[in-house]
Amino acid sequence: MGCEKDCCHAFLSCVFDYGTPVTLVISNKKVGFIFRLIQLLIITYVAVYVCWMKRSYQDTDSVISSVSTKVKGNILTNSSAEGAHVWDVAEYVIPPQGENSFFVMTNMIVTPGQTQGSCPEALSEFTRCESNIDCKIGLNEVRGNGRCPRVQTGRCGKYSETIKTCEVFSWCPIENDSIIPKTAVLGDAEDFTVLIKNNIHYPKFNFKKRNILDYINTSYLKTCTFNRKTDPDCPIFRLGDIVAEAGEVFSVMAVKGGVIGIFIDWSCNLDFPERFCVPKYSFSRLDNKHIENNVAPGYNFRFAKYFKNSENVETRTLIKAYGIRFEVIVLGEAGKFSIVPTIVNLGATLALLSLAGAVCDWFMLTFMKESDYYAKHKFIHLNDRSDSGVPLSSVGTPSYGTP
Amino acid sequence: MGCEKDCCHAFLSCVFDYGTPVTLVISNKKVGFIFRLIQLLIITYVAVYVCWMKRSYQDTDSVISSVSTKVKGNILTNSSAEGAHVWDVAEYVIPPQGENSFFVMTNMIVTPGQTQGSCPEALSEFTRCESNIDCKIGLNEVRGNGRCPRVQTGRCGKYSETIKTCEVFSWCPIENDSIIPKTAVLGDAEDFTVLIKNNIHYPKFNFKKRNILDYINTSYLKTCTFNRKTDPDCPIFRLGDIVAEAGEVFSVMAVKGGVIGIFIDWSCNLDFPERFCVPKYSFSRLDNKHIENNVAPGYNFRFAKYFKNSENVETRTLIKAYGIRFEVIVLGEAGKFSIVPTIVNLGATLALLSLAGAVCDWFMLTFMKESDYYAKHKFIHLNDRSDSGVPLSSVGTPSYGTP
Amino acid sequence: MGCEKDCCHAFLSCVFDYGTPVTLVISNKKVGFIFRLIQLLIITYVAVYVCWMKRSYQDTDSVISSVSTKVKGNILTNSSAEGAHVWDVAEYVIPPQGENSFFVMTNMIVTPGQTQGSCPEALSEFTRCESNIDCKIGLNEVRGNGRCPRVQTGRCGKYSETIKTCEVFSWCPIENDSIIPKTAVLGDAEDFTVLIKNNIHYPKFNFKKRNILDYINTSYLKTCTFNRKTDPDCPIFRLGDIVAEAGEVFSVMAVKGGVIGIFIDWSCNLDFPERFCVPKYSFSRLDNKHIENNVAPGYNFRFAKYFKNSENVETRTLIKAYGIRFEVIVLGEAGKFSIVPTIVNLGATLALLSLAGAVCDWFMLTFMKESDYYAKHKFIHLNDRSDSGVPLSSVGTPSYGTP
Repeated sequence: MGCEKDCCHAFLSCVFDYGTPVTLVISNKKVGFIFRLIQLLIITYVAVYVCWMKRSYQDTDSVISSVSTKVKGNILTNSSAEGAHVWDVAEYVIPPQGENSFFVMTNMIVTPGQTQGSCPEALSEFTRCESNIDCKIGLNEVRGNGRCPRVQTGRCGKYSETIKTCEVFSWCPIENDSIIPKTAVLGDAEDFTVLIKNNIHYPKFNFKKRNILDYINTSYLKTCTFNRKTDPDCPIFRLGDIVAEAGEVFSVMAVKGGVIGIFIDWSCNLDFPERFCVPKYSFSRLDNKHIENNVAPGYNFRFAKYFKNSENVETRTLIKAYGIRFEVIVLGEAGKFSIVPTIVNLGATLALLSLAGAVCDWFMLTFMKESDYYAKHKFIHLNDRSDSGVPLSSVGTPSYGTP
Repeated sequence: MGCEKDCCHAFLSCVFDYGTPVTLVISNKKVGFIFRLIQLLIITYVAVYVCWMKRSYQDTDSVISSVSTKVKGNILTNSSAEGAHVWDVAEYVIPPQGENSFFVMTNMIVTPGQTQGSCPEALSEFTRCESNIDCKIGLNEVRGNGRCPRVQTGRCGKYSETIKTCEVFSWCPIENDSIIPKTAVLGDAEDFTVLIKNNIHYPKFNFKKRNILDYINTSYLKTCTFNRKTDPDCPIFRLGDIVAEAGEVFSVMAVKGGVIGIFIDWSCNLDFPERFCVPKYSFSRLDNKHIENNVAPGYNFRFAKYFKNSENVETRTLIKAYGIRFEVIVLGEAGKFSIVPTIVNLGATLALLSLAGAVCDWFMLTFMKESDYYAKHKFIHLNDRSDSGVPLSSVGTPSYGTP
Repeated sequence: MGCEKDCCHAFLSCVFDYGTPVTLVISNKKVGFIFRLIQLLIITYVAVYVCWMKRSYQDTDSVISSVSTKVKGNILTNSSAEGAHVWDVAEYVIPPQGENSFFVMTNMIVTPGQTQGSCPEALSEFTRCESNIDCKIGLNEVRGNGRCPRVQTGRCGKYSETIKTCEVFSWCPIENDSIIPKTAVLGDAEDFTVLIKNNIHYPKFNFKKRNILDYINTSYLKTCTFNRKTDPDCPIFRLGDIVAEAGEVFSVMAVKGGVIGIFIDWSCNLDFPERFCVPKYSFSRLDNKHIENNVAPGYNFRFAKYFKNSENVETRTLIKAYGIRFEVIVLGEAGKFSIVPTIVNLGATLALLSLAGAVCDWFMLTFMKESDYYAKHKFIHLNDRSDSGVPLSSVGTPSYGTP
């Protein structure tokens, strides 16, 4: 810059020449006010919204998390059909290992003593028959919900005294899941508790923490239960409370099952001391409970316990388990001051500030009555043909020395 | 700025002074064209690429998702060794609970009636023996693939009529997994269907949706099967179709197993109405199927069913299960207009536009034949020693008043 | 710009007018040096820190990963109570399917032959009784750790020859988990190995890779074991090595269990060739091992094997399994050159460079002894009232033509 051919300065002096734009200072309150107002607006926006609210000067990192869960509780049920039965953790929590997703069985349809063989199909409008002619050997329609999900033998068998259905190859007798217990068998599971242990890690900031906070002592942990108001840091939750906070009624949900999300939010501003980084718990139902526009509502699955009877034939107890699956979902983004996003935002702000000048120039040259006068001084017009000897229009001094 | 000591303006008037650079306007088509061209290029790039294609004015959020799956289907197999057997969901889906990863058993090696004891090791070049001298009490090499994975008793036992192998402590008889059924036992599993229920959540934008779209009704759901062309929104998939879309042949893959990814892409532009945010399904094989440079190809694992025989001794049926593990992987990043990235990109663009001026100045002062003339007017040189009385070189008016 | 009403140029010529600020060039070494120094600092910072270290010119993507694991090993245990027992994978890995989280049982409390019934509660200060009066029918406190977790029958029963405890409905006999084997039953599990297969995917860059690198051949895979120095790319890990790298002692950890994280870091600079993108393994303990301020230390869960005895009554073997849960956590962010972040950072840098001018102007007009002289030439003051005929203060030439 400014380093012309005929310039006798040495290269070094040329490098250290400093160029600064010649500035036209206009002492006009209106333009000045608009200029400062725009500057103020931009700076306020950046300070308040970008820096304070959005914390754009921070680098962010996503949470890495490890969860283990442990359910506690026992239930004594007393049904006329099966007599008294005590349910403990090893029976109703499936799978038994407490990972970040656990299932608590609340209702079930048990079909004991199944063996491989053939027997009449479960009753439906599609499976009824009068004689063997109505049944087709080998017919098996996977799709068509219950139309004929199993392989037919071609025979028509006795479903009950008066009704006949097509016989099928299957584990027999066939499960009858048309009638679900209307009151959940393990409806008292709402009193069960679950201990959730959660260790988190923000690798970028080398920050580790767990949801059992430092100030909590062991004796408190042995007796506490989470309560948003009185015990917001206790990591032991009553299942009924979780479901209630998710806006559901446990006894209703227990009948057909469902999926509940347990959200642990570790969003933290790590520019503050570590003790301010605490988990926030929230709960909501994840599946859709409405019957309309839904398929297979609730949550259930089938599993079997296998036995061998005295003749060494494999038999099994099939259990269609309805229940609540709890999913522990750990969210979080930590922010900490970092130079790169700060510089980027600072640079962008500085660039924006140059907008203020552009707006004011436009305002000054368009709406002010002295706009010609301003333009005359702001702009120095050079025509294409140089050194013509003719004074150029609106060049600095001469033009207003002789108006 | 412009607030000198001898200035009699009050502080307020000083604050509202507006400074704008004095501008040299050059009416030269070449330079002007270059200037506008560069500006146009930058603005076009920003408008088309940054805004339209990359949507850099948007804030983004990653998807939070909950998946549950349910497989349906029954198979009747008829092997000479074991007779007819019907397989239902409770037997071939392991674990029975449908989470975002489920395994469908397609082939197996069953070793029934195992009890704790000692028996001759499976046949290999390392386990053959002639007499007890060839076997070593307590030898157990975990590494060395099959060399001697089990604890030897030190005796040489009869493997068959003619062959002897070292005896080992183990569940006996020992599984012989050297011969896998060449046609998958449950190869018909390709007709099974799986219902995938997926609820997603973009917490930053408080946006929730599920893959059963609102316009879909229950009766459609009961009969539909996913098809990319005819039924792209049906959440029920035929296993064979999934594998075919992943570019594999089901009957081949069923023999040794493998891992298939079911990708659900929820990438959405949330500036558009919610109905445009629909899941896109895609499928691909996740494991490596090539034999070369591979170890333990396919996908299999062993599990056992435990029984007690009439003498109350624990026996078990060991099953080496080959099959396809399906992993539902939910991807997605949602974008929505946000002021912070907009400002940052706008600022960066404005800053870039200042490059246009720098390029043109350089062009003007280097390549134009009138460059001296331009420089004379653009630059006002001030020497170090001030007020010397000597007119400075190339200062505004005098220089061209007297050429 | 510069397109006044009385301007006779056509619109086109007006558009191609090029405006460039008139620049005051000051040949002052001090100011020039400061100017170049600030520019140098900013450019160095951007080049070294932003570009080289933080690679801010890159777009980033998070890793999508699929993991399957396979444990190998056999153990022969010989306890006085139960005699010799061989443990294989199907028994000690729970669940049997190797997903990204697997559990290896190392210690256990086995309670065989449980049936539904009533029996004296496990011994504790709260369960002791002298007669039926001390027991309350139906009492069941889920909370209160062991106070009364099971439903009382109201009777006082014989716990041992001399001690009585309240009778409860339960699976009987009740598990006595007060005494854990002090030396882990399966402490030798540290010699087991685990094969970890990991396929990753960066969808944004369409980049796929697996942790079995291309140069590794099958014969190497059959015999290698991971070692940070000699075999850093072998995907087969000895459990004892993993625990040792995590800073723990296997034999100690095996007693009460714990959670170990296996981190696979796929952070890659994809501007380099693909062969430089290799996984880095690291290991650390995820749960808290300190007894103080902890609840349920270690890692354990209960599961049961169900049998039917000769009278067709369901019995079960309850197992409280202690062990190590290994969680394979795949981390990684890939970066690749992208125009958008480059432009943003370039723009921000250019905007920052304008700071250099502002700082120098301030220095020049405040600290230099010639500041008045500079200011006189830099600023052209225009008063509010225009065309007054009175020469304005400090306008270009006249002022120093006549000092």
